[in-house]
Amino acid sequence: MSSDRVVLAYSGGLDTSVAIGWIAEETNAEVVAVAVDVGQGGEDLETIRKRALACGAAEAVVADARAEFAEEYCLPALQANAMYMDQYPLVSALSRPLIAKYLTDAAREHGADTVAHGCTGKGNDQVRFEVGIGALAPEMKVLAPVRDFAWTREKAIDWAERNGLPIDVSNKSPYSVDQNVWGRAVETGFLEDIWNAPIEDVYSYTADPTQQREPDEVVIGFDRGVPVTIDGAAVTPLQAVTELNRRAGAQGVGRLDMVEDRLVGIKSREIYEAPGALALITAHRELEAVTLERDQARFKRTVQQRWGELVYDGLWFSPLKSSLDSFIADTQRHVSGQIRMTLHNGNAVVTGRSSEQSLYDFNLATYDEGDSFDQELAKGFVQLWGLPSKIASKREQYS
Amino acid sequence: MSSDRVVLAYSGGLDTSVAIGWIAEETNAEVVAVAVDVGQGGEDLETIRKRALACGAAEAVVADARAEFAEEYCLPALQANAMYMDQYPLVSALSRPLIAKYLTDAAREHGADTVAHGCTGKGNDQVRFEVGIGALAPEMKVLAPVRDFAWTREKAIDWAERNGLPIDVSNKSPYSVDQNVWGRAVETGFLEDIWNAPIEDVYSYTADPTQQREPDEVVIGFDRGVPVTIDGAAVTPLQAVTELNRRAGAQGVGRLDMVEDRLVGIKSREIYEAPGALALITAHRELEAVTLERDQARFKRTVQQRWGELVYDGLWFSPLKSSLDSFIADTQRHVSGQIRMTLHNGNAVVTGRSSEQSLYDFNLATYDEGDSFDQELAKGFVQLWGLPSKIASKREQYS
Amino acid sequence: MSSDRVVLAYSGGLDTSVAIGWIAEETNAEVVAVAVDVGQGGEDLETIRKRALACGAAEAVVADARAEFAEEYCLPALQANAMYMDQYPLVSALSRPLIAKYLTDAAREHGADTVAHGCTGKGNDQVRFEVGIGALAPEMKVLAPVRDFAWTREKAIDWAERNGLPIDVSNKSPYSVDQNVWGRAVETGFLEDIWNAPIEDVYSYTADPTQQREPDEVVIGFDRGVPVTIDGAAVTPLQAVTELNRRAGAQGVGRLDMVEDRLVGIKSREIYEAPGALALITAHRELEAVTLERDQARFKRTVQQRWGELVYDGLWFSPLKSSLDSFIADTQRHVSGQIRMTLHNGNAVVTGRSSEQSLYDFNLATYDEGDSFDQELAKGFVQLWGLPSKIASKREQYS
Amino acid sequence: MSSDRVVLAYSGGLDTSVAIGWIAEETNAEVVAVAVDVGQGGEDLETIRKRALACGAAEAVVADARAEFAEEYCLPALQANAMYMDQYPLVSALSRPLIAKYLTDAAREHGADTVAHGCTGKGNDQVRFEVGIGALAPEMKVLAPVRDFAWTREKAIDWAERNGLPIDVSNKSPYSVDQNVWGRAVETGFLEDIWNAPIEDVYSYTADPTQQREPDEVVIGFDRGVPVTIDGAAVTPLQAVTELNRRAGAQGVGRLDMVEDRLVGIKSREIYEAPGALALITAHRELEAVTLERDQARFKRTVQQRWGELVYDGLWFSPLKSSLDSFIADTQRHVSGQIRMTLHNGNAVVTGRSSEQSLYDFNLATYDEGDSFDQELAKGFVQLWGLPSKIASKREQYS
Repeated sequence: MSSDRVVLAYSGGLDTSVAIGWIAEETNAEVVAVAVDVGQGGEDLETIRKRALACGAAEAVVADARAEFAEEYCLPALQANAMYMDQYPLVSALSRPLIAKYLTDAAREHGADTVAHGCTGKGNDQVRFEVGIGALAPEMKVLAPVRDFAWTREKAIDWAERNGLPIDVSNKSPYSVDQNVWGRAVETGFLEDIWNAPIEDVYSYTADPTQQREPDEVVIGFDRGVPVTIDGAAVTPLQAVTELNRRAGAQGVGRLDMVEDRLVGIKSREIYEAPGALALITAHRELEAVTLERDQARFKRTVQQRWGELVYDGLWFSPLKSSLDSFIADTQRHVSGQIRMTLHNGNAVVTGRSSEQSLYDFNLATYDEGDSFDQELAKGFVQLWGLPSKIASKREQYS
Repeated sequence: MSSDRVVLAYSGGLDTSVAIGWIAEETNAEVVAVAVDVGQGGEDLETIRKRALACGAAEAVVADARAEFAEEYCLPALQANAMYMDQYPLVSALSRPLIAKYLTDAAREHGADTVAHGCTGKGNDQVRFEVGIGALAPEMKVLAPVRDFAWTREKAIDWAERNGLPIDVSNKSPYSVDQNVWGRAVETGFLEDIWNAPIEDVYSYTADPTQQREPDEVVIGFDRGVPVTIDGAAVTPLQAVTELNRRAGAQGVGRLDMVEDRLVGIKSREIYEAPGALALITAHRELEAVTLERDQARFKRTVQQRWGELVYDGLWFSPLKSSLDSFIADTQRHVSGQIRMTLHNGNAVVTGRSSEQSLYDFNLATYDEGDSFDQELAKGFVQLWGLPSKIASKREQYS
Repeated sequence: MSSDRVVLAYSGGLDTSVAIGWIAEETNAEVVAVAVDVGQGGEDLETIRKRALACGAAEAVVADARAEFAEEYCLPALQANAMYMDQYPLVSALSRPLIAKYLTDAAREHGADTVAHGCTGKGNDQVRFEVGIGALAPEMKVLAPVRDFAWTREKAIDWAERNGLPIDVSNKSPYSVDQNVWGRAVETGFLEDIWNAPIEDVYSYTADPTQQREPDEVVIGFDRGVPVTIDGAAVTPLQAVTELNRRAGAQGVGRLDMVEDRLVGIKSREIYEAPGALALITAHRELEAVTLERDQARFKRTVQQRWGELVYDGLWFSPLKSSLDSFIADTQRHVSGQIRMTLHNGNAVVTGRSSEQSLYDFNLATYDEGDSFDQELAKGFVQLWGLPSKIASKREQYS
Repeated sequence: MSSDRVVLAYSGGLDTSVAIGWIAEETNAEVVAVAVDVGQGGEDLETIRKRALACGAAEAVVADARAEFAEEYCLPALQANAMYMDQYPLVSALSRPLIAKYLTDAAREHGADTVAHGCTGKGNDQVRFEVGIGALAPEMKVLAPVRDFAWTREKAIDWAERNGLPIDVSNKSPYSVDQNVWGRAVETGFLEDIWNAPIEDVYSYTADPTQQREPDEVVIGFDRGVPVTIDGAAVTPLQAVTELNRRAGAQGVGRLDMVEDRLVGIKSREIYEAPGALALITAHRELEAVTLERDQARFKRTVQQRWGELVYDGLWFSPLKSSLDSFIADTQRHVSGQIRMTLHNGNAVVTGRSSEQSLYDFNLATYDEGDSFDQELAKGFVQLWGLPSKIASKREQYS
């Protein structure tokens, strides 16, 4: 094996802490640990950095990428109203390409020719990491010890104890969690029986929606598809998501429980919480209903379905993703205005919209005085609109 | 004008009661009034029938079409998970083709060569009626007095009073309502300002979702895409919708407030209530998540978007609708099983699914013992899956 | 009627020459005649201008818009590989929005509030003109005397003779022709029987493809989707189309005979000639086959089908068209290289492609020495690729 | 290794003849050789059967599947107008699932638990075989010695000579060919340079299109999407393809030279000949232009693109393919009538169409007497058709 350097996607947890020493031993390479904060919470970056070094890393790089994540990854997802299978707002799928970027950047900076990650072989994240790395640094090798060497938790604990790593291996959570600014994903054994309902204990971003509390009314302002104000106060994208995570989460908004089609060909049961994402997408969709032209809105549904599939399937850095982004960017030019919503009992309900870019025309729509719609035009429209069906029906009847 | 007969779509209300005499006078034809019960509630059919005759109809035909409506119109919409603009479950759009069928059947039976309806020229229903009539009876003429002769409510009241029609013209509701088994649509003046929120008074099918009450758990059983049991008891499609209208409605499920793209080219503000439809579609979609293969499910989204647009746009009897139905029918062969839901606070939340036709494979999905997924296969899959992006990225980097 | 000015789309022919005086008489307005050269051939612009004045126009505006047409209308169609119904390269559909732009510009410059055109009510061009005018100048009124006043050729001749217009009304061609830089469209009575074959007399841009002659080899160079060289010599877009019209036309390339779905709801028989368009699209598609990534190319087919429908349907200036253009523009970034074709016997056959932006990788593709494709990866790929079908098949077999 | 039986896809050529003994040796299993005639020509089945036994097969099964191939595989491709990348009519992609069916049938009949094929790891056929086998017999194992054991031609020759197999190993063709009833595919070293043109020597199904000869006029009759007559004489699907291979091939129709996106992520250069397929698809598409309603035809393009991708990608037996087939079947109900074509100089040109199911209505289409199209309807249609663009443009201009 080479004496090159390996960049490792480092979380601070047991598996990747053990991986530092294990990779060093197996490959005879120096390990550069890279931890990226995309809003996963937990320990601070400096603690994680020190642990990496204590576990044997040659270098440890940490970065707060939350603002970049919100602006460059969550915002495009919002503008695409991205919901895989009409439900899942792509929580983990969005963070993987950003982390891949930090990994390949670190690899180049630190002279590594290999990037390692801790994903298993039956999930989507291995695809998102490796396809991302392949696109950003096609020459880079990839190491996936958990998958390729059948590394298990038991082996990791054993290794940690034998090597005296500064990791607490005792308290294993029953939940496998991934969380970031855009949301939170949970898997756990008892939910692998798809007839079982989730229990309250599963949730962290959202309060119990059935609890009685006062509704929360919020007004979100958008400028060309970007949320720029909340209740009149200017916000950055990160602030918009964070504040709505808090406020919508407090009302129990954004829980998802679904059976999902993984890219690797199997179905899995997933629980998600994405209060800010759900509230923002709901508001954004309604503002689009007011500001997008009908045909454009219809085709955008096809585009955003494909966008969601692509990103779910790990193809963030693909040429098609780039072209779909160009389509979406053009649609956002007039998506400016205010949406008023009530957050309550797990619901985010739009109650008002206003926009100087609105295509809703009161004078055309009203049935009261001021109606400017020329109803005489309708007869001809209806007749020619239905003509192809009429001609086809004549055939059907006489054949 | 001819002495032929005209079939009139009759509701029992002011406008169409006046139309009986008005059409007779204008066209010198006998008017055959046809009233079809699709679940709009209100007066009984016999009362309506007698009023038609009292208003001068030569014949009055009434029909209870609720079961047919549920089976032949709501059920296809359920199997298509039909939601125009991802929200509106096509309440009025579904009943119009059925009424068109009763109108053309009556026209043929009673020797009429013209069908009349009371729609205005700026709505969708004129299209749905006339395109439906054109497809079912291409030789039939259409009369739309409200649209083509600028008939107004004031003129109608005046006519009714002058001719002593047995109609109470005093109490005008501020709401324009259309309701049937599948849901209820409301328009009203103050909601034409899209910043105004609806008030509780607007709603009839649904209780206030913010009121505290006990949740209602329901188990819906499907057989090949058809709801066949509720909490274990066999139901017809009509019973399924009706019972869920009641139970989901009691929990405030199924309210919609949206700005909508009409076929005639304008945007309008609409309020809908569809508690049964929303509960059934939510359950059906989740059962499809469990029983449809991934690629089939992905393409079905494209099909059902088009299906919803077609039906919204009045093309129920079109050749494309027929072909989309064939696609959808094939997808439903395995959509059998049970969905458990909690109805509460305006939410219909799936909490469990079971199906003998499930494609969810516990042994492939689990991270516990019994895992039968061969993770070794993943490496090759990931590499070739990402190869096109990788090749494209190489070019991007060196050009 | 007002004393305003009316801008008239003027061709120099009988119908629109008569329309000058007729409109002036009917509307009491001054008529501004506007003739735009998009490559229709025939008389020179100065002759046309003088005739307009001689027929009573208050002003006559003529413009050579051929280069603009090639660059702003034909080029986007080329990049979209636009073929309505997979065949028709949108000849007339492309020129109408450009002419609408000249008409509305002239209307504003000359203070007119009305634009007039000579289209009938059963074709597509009325839609393209009027929707284009509506988008470019929503406040403008439209006058369509042939359609709205049932103006006929007989009435026009009568008027011309009565008013002594300087028009030769004797030699009526049996063919109704529209031609421009991008191609030529022909309709005629005997072809309205769709069993009849066209005769050689119908064609003008193309020689008889069955005649024996030497093949013509041509190399077309593209830079980001734009044809920039022919046989190594730099060309403008107009020169590229014009030269290929000549060379491909001389080999009988580009004849089309089809039954077409018009927007107004009927099918019609159409003959087209588009030798340059066909040759360029064939070359461009093959260069895309070499330079576009697979998923991008697959989705672009959906985009270009919709693009073609929109433009055919008169929606050149629509928001959706703009967003589709953004998608297409992004795809063209690497569509650079050379395509060698043989033009012969009505065929344009690609025989070679070269591109520095090629995604064809000899080392991955070859079965000879130098193969760099790692076949070991394929097994895992194949297994997981087929896994969803396999799981679904198990169910099929045991149920 | 087990003493089970292995079914081998047997061609009679060097590689698979050697594989019989090699697999027997490596796996200690009896080999059952299966050869399926899909129209590949060459030796007769009995010769192939005897050679398999001479090479050591325990059993040798041969089957003439040409009629089944034409009816069950080519016909659906015709009705889908299937052209991968708008060009390739899926020659090899169609035969693989049929062969997979014969292989799994034989495996079950002869008690084998493994199916072996001779495909490499960089082509599409490994996917088509293995995904097909997985769908038809999910429990079956697959062996791909060429791919998984890096078996080469040199190793095969060496083995054949060492074991005295009755195979002539001397004359290696420079061409790698796959052919069947629907067409012929050719790869060869010098065409891996994509700038090189094919030479005449590459072709076998088609004569040189540039040679002067008399045109051939043919009339093809369809009944609900099935070709049933040629020049008035009844034909089976197999006869239709075979006769048109001969007649269109004699006129040089159906040559293709393209760069293609393989499923395994690379681009490859391919030469195809498919004279009968091209002639039939051209005729079928035109008959659809006459008999399909516009919206149905537009959506069918989306369906047939996906159908072609799925079949190319090896997913013949997938649930989505089944649902797409249902869509297509419904569209074919009226695709009945006659198409007259001229085959000449590499072109298949439609010159006439007639159908009792035609939606082309002379009276609506004609500009002569008898015109029944009510042009008065057009004005309203045009205005409302363009209304959304007009409203959007107003905003664009004043913002």
